[in-house]
Amino acid sequence: MTRTRGDGRATAPPDGPAAATKAVDTPAPDPRVARSRERVLGVALDLVVERGIAGASIEAIAARSGVAKTTIYRQWPHQAALVMDAFRSIAPDPPIPDTGTLRGDLVVLLGGFAEALGRGRSGVLMAALIDAAQRDADFAHVHAQEVLRRHQPVLVVLARGRDRGELPAGVDLDELVDRLAGPIFHRRFISGLPPDRDFGERMAIAALGAG
Amino acid sequence: MTRTRGDGRATAPPDGPAAATKAVDTPAPDPRVARSRERVLGVALDLVVERGIAGASIEAIAARSGVAKTTIYRQWPHQAALVMDAFRSIAPDPPIPDTGTLRGDLVVLLGGFAEALGRGRSGVLMAALIDAAQRDADFAHVHAQEVLRRHQPVLVVLARGRDRGELPAGVDLDELVDRLAGPIFHRRFISGLPPDRDFGERMAIAALGAG
Repeated sequence: MTRTRGDGRATAPPDGPAAATKAVDTPAPDPRVARSRERVLGVALDLVVERGIAGASIEAIAARSGVAKTTIYRQWPHQAALVMDAFRSIAPDPPIPDTGTLRGDLVVLLGGFAEALGRGRSGVLMAALIDAAQRDADFAHVHAQEVLRRHQPVLVVLARGRDRGELPAGVDLDELVDRLAGPIFHRRFISGLPPDRDFGERMAIAALGAG
Repeated sequence: MTRTRGDGRATAPPDGPAAATKAVDTPAPDPRVARSRERVLGVALDLVVERGIAGASIEAIAARSGVAKTTIYRQWPHQAALVMDAFRSIAPDPPIPDTGTLRGDLVVLLGGFAEALGRGRSGVLMAALIDAAQRDADFAHVHAQEVLRRHQPVLVVLARGRDRGELPAGVDLDELVDRLAGPIFHRRFISGLPPDRDFGERMAIAALGAG
């Protein structure tokens, strides 16, 4: 995966989640730029929720926001980068917990994730991103980058737990991430029930095999 | 959920998966009707994979297949019903296993599901259906019906296992379905790795808490 694109695009490094909450981190931007950026992101969110990715083209976003296409393209190289930033604007990175136990850390992380996915528009955006990633190279790229970023906190607490002897030495951490987060996605997108904090906490405990 | 719609639409009953592999079960249909039906379903699959749901309108399907819109509407009331039948044409219902143990049955079911989702086009179709269900009432309806159908075999083997004492009496079977199938979805759509039979089998065993 191209962790460094070198194209000057405002993608956050997957290994620095705490510093990467905002995709553009130039200091003290022109307030007009910041305002138009916010308007563009808000319109992008609205259009994806209402019409899906196909209905949220740069053209459609420019038309509804009143921000010129050239201005939009100065900040985002393509629709995928813009939609991903819109998603990030409503789904900020969680801090990495450090409760002293793996179980405690996972309960915090999974509870927070389940709550976030069960409420508001982040689930709708995520479904749109997953679908677009199946057939569009730009979306596949930003989706893969975002997954690396999002999994980082879980992998940190899992590695810490393994080093403390709370997991078997040879455990497959990526597979454990699938087991931890998978049920929350499944509940939201397949079973069609909104997950909540309790559900996420139960999934954390179940995946560790401790009741 | 409306298990019986009573509109003559060819939806299979969720409680009869074995008899419901084909969405239309009228005996010996006109061969021209069967041929045009197959052509329409094939084109619908191609268009969803290439362009997504928005690019697979009834109009676009009619144009590429050469089958008149009126003919298509005689078989499907709306795009959602047609896309769902296209999905079912490449993702038939599995038989319900009966190996004698819950663990054995789940290994068969989950292994087969992971293999099916990891290969071919069913994953792309599923992502498109999930996304469309977020904002379109017809898609939400066919998606919810399909989930009921697909979960039926798992719920049958889980209930049988519970009755044999292989699960705690008070276990939440719906939540257990999330824990069983969720990791497979997560691997396919989030981690971006194709699940295979081995992965599905490991997830079945892990969810039961038996190593």
